[in-house]
Amino acid sequence: MNTSFIPKQEYFDRIAKFQANMKKAGLDACLVHGTESDFANVRYLSEYWPTFEQAGVFVPAEGPAILLIGPESWKYAVGRSVFEPENIMMLLNYREAAEPDYPGIPLSTFADVAKKAMGKKKLKKLGLCGTAVMTMPTLKALENQLPGVKLVVAEDVFRPLRWIKSENELNSHKKAFKVAEKAVAAMLNEMKPGMTEFQALAIAQREIFANGGEYEGHSLYCFGGDRTSNGISRPTYAKLKKNEIIQLNIGARVGGYSSSIGIPVYFGKLPKEQMALVEFGLRAHKYTFELMKAGADAASIAKDYTQWGIDQGWGDYMLYGPVHGLGIQETESPWIETTSKYKLQENMTYQIDTFFTGNGYGLRWERGCIIKKDGCELLSKKFMSLKDCKLD
Amino acid sequence: MNTSFIPKQEYFDRIAKFQANMKKAGLDACLVHGTESDFANVRYLSEYWPTFEQAGVFVPAEGPAILLIGPESWKYAVGRSVFEPENIMMLLNYREAAEPDYPGIPLSTFADVAKKAMGKKKLKKLGLCGTAVMTMPTLKALENQLPGVKLVVAEDVFRPLRWIKSENELNSHKKAFKVAEKAVAAMLNEMKPGMTEFQALAIAQREIFANGGEYEGHSLYCFGGDRTSNGISRPTYAKLKKNEIIQLNIGARVGGYSSSIGIPVYFGKLPKEQMALVEFGLRAHKYTFELMKAGADAASIAKDYTQWGIDQGWGDYMLYGPVHGLGIQETESPWIETTSKYKLQENMTYQIDTFFTGNGYGLRWERGCIIKKDGCELLSKKFMSLKDCKLD
Repeated sequence: MNTSFIPKQEYFDRIAKFQANMKKAGLDACLVHGTESDFANVRYLSEYWPTFEQAGVFVPAEGPAILLIGPESWKYAVGRSVFEPENIMMLLNYREAAEPDYPGIPLSTFADVAKKAMGKKKLKKLGLCGTAVMTMPTLKALENQLPGVKLVVAEDVFRPLRWIKSENELNSHKKAFKVAEKAVAAMLNEMKPGMTEFQALAIAQREIFANGGEYEGHSLYCFGGDRTSNGISRPTYAKLKKNEIIQLNIGARVGGYSSSIGIPVYFGKLPKEQMALVEFGLRAHKYTFELMKAGADAASIAKDYTQWGIDQGWGDYMLYGPVHGLGIQETESPWIETTSKYKLQENMTYQIDTFFTGNGYGLRWERGCIIKKDGCELLSKKFMSLKDCKLD
Repeated sequence: MNTSFIPKQEYFDRIAKFQANMKKAGLDACLVHGTESDFANVRYLSEYWPTFEQAGVFVPAEGPAILLIGPESWKYAVGRSVFEPENIMMLLNYREAAEPDYPGIPLSTFADVAKKAMGKKKLKKLGLCGTAVMTMPTLKALENQLPGVKLVVAEDVFRPLRWIKSENELNSHKKAFKVAEKAVAAMLNEMKPGMTEFQALAIAQREIFANGGEYEGHSLYCFGGDRTSNGISRPTYAKLKKNEIIQLNIGARVGGYSSSIGIPVYFGKLPKEQMALVEFGLRAHKYTFELMKAGADAASIAKDYTQWGIDQGWGDYMLYGPVHGLGIQETESPWIETTSKYKLQENMTYQIDTFFTGNGYGLRWERGCIIKKDGCELLSKKFMSLKDCKLD
């Protein structure tokens, strides 16, 4: 398979846990959805990662799960997924967005899938998981091909399975952070004023793929000036300038698991108020480390952090919750927000995402961690000093 | 903006054409959808490209269109899109798949959007475009927030607008192919047996970003052995081997517009039957060039190509239609299939995608072209010789 560091059996153990949750919830089966960019649900259960097309996994409460793919991916899915060919089916609704007809390629329907997966059991209530990315063709196909089946959103029977990581998952994250560290180190070493933001990212892309990454961990950040105040952004053809913050967020994905390291950097000298935010940001980042441990209440962490930021005089620069889940996607459920309703548990993984947005500038210090009994284990201890920010 | 080579006015001209189609179709407005990986519809109208989140564009039959974004992208969308801030609104349904709550961030609903966009006109019939990627949260929000509004799939009023490219779009494609050529040349020069497939792609990623690419044009292909028979596939940690086909498909995206060049390569010497397929594949690729011209019937091209392949004795190696649309996405509507129902027009752009799948091996010759009156203009004339395939 050569695409992950997770033993095949672990995927089937995940499916068994999912099936136990389903039975408790009174569901006959669940359908999980994944797309090219939001593929985590499908990959978690099958190791399959669609490209161009979409995919699903149909999991009956008992018996083998079925991997559902688009019309072009038969050989790819047979070779890559942990599923036997007899448990893989091609459906039109998972085709690519160009919507070709594929004359001559035999396709199944959800009725065929239900028949195969359920055997003699009746499918009355089907849970839908990954609905945030489930698309209209799949929803319409379910309605048309499974008349009389009750469709219910069932994120809670699946999503929390992905929260607590196994040793194999943690090791994949650790590898991903090692690769991200190499990419950041190379950028800090090679970036020059006058390069475009994209050219600076060429350094990171080279290092990620050369050192064991299978892909970037998320759409990489390298941008300067006003755009450093953007909570989300993309790089451009703009050139790197002296005397302003340049925001880096560099993540690698290794064997399916993501990483990201965020650091504000600059050439020359920053204006005083920008340097003050860089320093305060790093303090806030380190303050957050102390709040993270098993048993801690997620909402209390967000409230503590927010109040602390306000008390320190930077409340106007705060936009949203200080921490989000980390897994196959770099940003995953659960977030840590003032509205959260859960406690942290051992071996959950998070990105400590310390973002401040000002008028015309902003910055983000970011790294991953593993929740432990008495605190958190940082997934990278590099690039945590003001010295790292200054590039010349 | 620094993210495209399309003048701002061209986006508004596109919207005006879209509005004219809407009026003809009796629609009061249309909603277009885009995701991180399938963003073309939204970018075409606004230059906005979501990351982490999703996005939409609400276009009334008359008056300004509204860009719809998720809760984290306000500053990003204001800076990047061609829309004025007054025509940008944040909606919860476009949030990322982790589904955070975002306490304290004020959000709009589709009712607010309709009120703003429609003014005194009533919204009775709303066309949905990009439904292949439109997600359940957006569909549910439409149903709940716009009760009584008739929702109809309306791909035909929008999709064909993207088929025929302007001079600025063609120039972006040409730039994208120049970058892809540099990436392929570097790979042919630097690839060695024993490298992993990902490591070989490090070369391409470096060249793409260093030479004017904003991103890969599609998920890049570099894989050997059995996987060359996969219509769709992804690279792995497997090492490049001698004496077997290694399939490359390398595309860059420049200012939003994609490219891809596909070529089978090898170290050492190929088994006779594999070399025969490489040679036949190149002949089939060149045969296809001759079929492509303005006025040609798409289905006839597919039928001619298929019959020719059968006549040449390679029918068993053929899987699907020989050509697909090229644009912002590397694979776009319209495909050229035996079921197609349209004629080629000047300045349509296609990928000539010459794929053959055998037992344990396969290959793809691929490049883009622009449809002209008397033929097609190839978007790359490099890597079209058997000499290019042999790497040592």
